[in-house]
Amino acid sequence: MNPNPTRITAPAGTPFIEVVREFDAPRDLVYRACTDPDLVTRWLGPRRLTMRIIEFDARTGGSYRYVHTDAGGEEYAFRGVFHTVSEALIIQTFEFQGAPGAVSLETRTLDDLGGGRTRLHQNAVFPSLAARDQALESGMRHGITESMDRLGELLGARSGQR
Amino acid sequence: MNPNPTRITAPAGTPFIEVVREFDAPRDLVYRACTDPDLVTRWLGPRRLTMRIIEFDARTGGSYRYVHTDAGGEEYAFRGVFHTVSEALIIQTFEFQGAPGAVSLETRTLDDLGGGRTRLHQNAVFPSLAARDQALESGMRHGITESMDRLGELLGARSGQR
Repeated sequence: MNPNPTRITAPAGTPFIEVVREFDAPRDLVYRACTDPDLVTRWLGPRRLTMRIIEFDARTGGSYRYVHTDAGGEEYAFRGVFHTVSEALIIQTFEFQGAPGAVSLETRTLDDLGGGRTRLHQNAVFPSLAARDQALESGMRHGITESMDRLGELLGARSGQR
Repeated sequence: MNPNPTRITAPAGTPFIEVVREFDAPRDLVYRACTDPDLVTRWLGPRRLTMRIIEFDARTGGSYRYVHTDAGGEEYAFRGVFHTVSEALIIQTFEFQGAPGAVSLETRTLDDLGGGRTRLHQNAVFPSLAARDQALESGMRHGITESMDRLGELLGARSGQR
């Protein structure tokens, strides 16, 4: 059993999706994995997709843009802007270009739990209940869980290298 | 009576604030008033405050930062990033630096109603119910209504100049 499960909460009738996941890695490493584009491509998204970053300027006021591609060559494009980027707090917009205009706002905190452990907490809020529900129906839960597991694997490998 | 009232909707138990206001001005003029910093300072905020813009780069991926000052010299700072800027749609983050972290996402559409009239529709969503309620309690309704009236006055003056 995975000792660090991903908890996803999305109460009916709200526009929120909350994600909580702990990692056996120090906060600076989790932060780097969230902001260094060469690391981000190794965990963000479901395993079946390949990620190509067009821009990933993880600084306050920066922008990002990337494309996920499946085995059949189908592309899924995403983009957003970073409102705040610091080790403890990242706030960014998120848009799937297949659902244009349904932009969500993600607030991600990284808590240093001590002993080389970190808790990631992410709150996403959508501009309407319908937009939130549509995101959930598109398979977002699976994508989030697989991303978090891939991030855990990457951090495990890198913690070991230290 | 104001022929163009500002309708503000903020249902209890939701993180939303919706604003609808019509203007007797063509859409390109409303858009300019929302994106040209020299015009923005003339309507954004309550009448009792003076607005000083530090940065206002109203382009997709741009940032803004401004300060409102009251008669006693008290300052209220705001900042955000523009996710999308086009004549029909502006999506941006919004943060009052007195309530750091409680960032909201604003989606503003400008509908051309024909006959030189435009409808502004703005949806703001906050990261929690508490953050939305706190914004309302800080006097946001009054600030929005007065801003919209000032924008109407500015547009009336400029439409007349055409």
